[in-house]
Amino acid sequence: MSEPQPTGFSILNPFNHQPTPIPPVWLMRQAGRYLPEYRELRAKAGSFLDLCYSPEFATEVTLQPIRRFGFDAAILFSDILVVPHALGQHLEFVEGEGPRLDPLKSLDDIKALTPDKVEEKFRHVYEAVSSIRSALPEETALIGFCGAPWTVATYMVGGRGSVDQAVTRLFAYQNPQAFKQLIDLLVTTSVDYLLGQVKAGVNLLQIFDSWAGNLSDDEFLKWSIDPTRRIVREIKSQHPNLPIIGFPRGSGPGYETYLKATNVDGISCDTSLPLSYMRDHLSPLGTVQGNLDPLLLVTGGEALDRRVDEILETMSGKPFIFNLGHGIVPQTPPEHVARLVDRIRAAG
Amino acid sequence: MSEPQPTGFSILNPFNHQPTPIPPVWLMRQAGRYLPEYRELRAKAGSFLDLCYSPEFATEVTLQPIRRFGFDAAILFSDILVVPHALGQHLEFVEGEGPRLDPLKSLDDIKALTPDKVEEKFRHVYEAVSSIRSALPEETALIGFCGAPWTVATYMVGGRGSVDQAVTRLFAYQNPQAFKQLIDLLVTTSVDYLLGQVKAGVNLLQIFDSWAGNLSDDEFLKWSIDPTRRIVREIKSQHPNLPIIGFPRGSGPGYETYLKATNVDGISCDTSLPLSYMRDHLSPLGTVQGNLDPLLLVTGGEALDRRVDEILETMSGKPFIFNLGHGIVPQTPPEHVARLVDRIRAAG
Repeated sequence: MSEPQPTGFSILNPFNHQPTPIPPVWLMRQAGRYLPEYRELRAKAGSFLDLCYSPEFATEVTLQPIRRFGFDAAILFSDILVVPHALGQHLEFVEGEGPRLDPLKSLDDIKALTPDKVEEKFRHVYEAVSSIRSALPEETALIGFCGAPWTVATYMVGGRGSVDQAVTRLFAYQNPQAFKQLIDLLVTTSVDYLLGQVKAGVNLLQIFDSWAGNLSDDEFLKWSIDPTRRIVREIKSQHPNLPIIGFPRGSGPGYETYLKATNVDGISCDTSLPLSYMRDHLSPLGTVQGNLDPLLLVTGGEALDRRVDEILETMSGKPFIFNLGHGIVPQTPPEHVARLVDRIRAAG
Repeated sequence: MSEPQPTGFSILNPFNHQPTPIPPVWLMRQAGRYLPEYRELRAKAGSFLDLCYSPEFATEVTLQPIRRFGFDAAILFSDILVVPHALGQHLEFVEGEGPRLDPLKSLDDIKALTPDKVEEKFRHVYEAVSSIRSALPEETALIGFCGAPWTVATYMVGGRGSVDQAVTRLFAYQNPQAFKQLIDLLVTTSVDYLLGQVKAGVNLLQIFDSWAGNLSDDEFLKWSIDPTRRIVREIKSQHPNLPIIGFPRGSGPGYETYLKATNVDGISCDTSLPLSYMRDHLSPLGTVQGNLDPLLLVTGGEALDRRVDEILETMSGKPFIFNLGHGIVPQTPPEHVARLVDRIRAAG
């Protein structure tokens, strides 16, 4: 895949080994509550889940940060839990608390899921993708995404987010066969979902494994790396040139194993990953994305500038996409985001 | 420090480069709620904090798991938050929720702490240490401990445990000078506290940096590694042969930097750290301790046996202490702990 692609998306350059004196930049959760125009629209709208299925809302909020900051990529406004919801699991988003699902407790619960009905839900997302792609500036890439099977399963089995995913990790130890059925179902469903997004117009993909960081090495291989590798293989068999970024958040030295074994083209690094590790261990294996602390975007000022410079200097000359180590937090002043983008662009 | 020590404690062997065909074993939270004899005693007693200052209670519960399982080391029954409490910060343990402190919000709050009064509280802990040391079998080592300044500070500034320590990380970005004063105070206080424990009879030390895992590399150096390095230097200046184990939980590739830079003798590994990383990157630098998933102790059976064997095989011939990657959880059946200890001892 070392051939340059005939495309105007600057974010594809690092994947094509083209020099990027100014690294492309986008930020996780760049569409969201820190933007007054998002809060305004959100206040008038229905439940969070309804919004994920509304092409009009999704298009408008996906475009908001592009208009303001001119990021090199937009990311589809959606949620990784669209997949369990499409599979028939009850899901709601409780204000200020996060998602709540009726947890899967047995093989029977897993068998009661409805893989044949997912397309009814997914088609709303595909519509949103087409609508966003037509509305975006030509030079702005559109990123599609899904949650990795492990991370999605932690919500499906645990019923909610948690510090240590203990409920799901224990379920996987105690019912490895049932859990494998769930993971296999999520692999198949995610492949269909991502292929649908590509068909509708996304230009690259990111797979979020936000809760990979508490797995022991053998469980990480089994539940994070292997399912992701299978998803990547299926997507690549139809779209060999479409870049895929993996994000095994918190997996430490496991990042290198993940990048080698899954065949993703790029790797999104969390804040705790040392810059020297990103440069020396990950960069030789693929495009590196990351990893500014989102709290420095709250802090702003010279502390922000200093760290941005440090990241840019360390990754200089490497295939690199500037991003955060985790999503933008709601209390972020938008002017700090503008300051960040200016500084990155001035550095070239 | 390559001279063998004239001591009967098997847990000191790895630090003295003596062969350990059967690795010494102890488990974090080995004294605790999973033991019926602990729950029985706990039900009759007062607040958790009172218990930490009761030499009688601390002695009894520290000994309980030694009687049952014959671990190679006991660990002082106490809590890392004794330090902020001794510094005058209001602290209570809310049943089922964890610790609650009146959070420090400014330099003035930090200046209002009472370092001159800590010994009033600490002497109860020292009494417990002496009492435990006299009651312990001769061949069982006693581990003293404290929280690392960063981790203790996350509770003092955040007021409670949290997934991402965002309150404290932001405070450190926004008020680096005030935060440094707090860290410096914790360094001094922790040194006094650990020296007091050693004087009272502990045989080795562990420094728990349980919340080190969300710091970026530069903040990790500043707030985790550097304060720990200073504590280790002070302890070593008086007790050059006393082993000190560090536990920078969740710091991934930062483990290696930490082990090199702090001069701890041993490193406690969390569950997510790959066994190959422990063997190839950490083992050459010091004694490795870890890292069985505590949830496998809940699961038991062959899944437990298989992983124990894998850990033993990987670390075979290396200076190694068998432990968990995190504390024992309350729902652990004690018979699984017995099975674990049997399997480790049979492997020699």
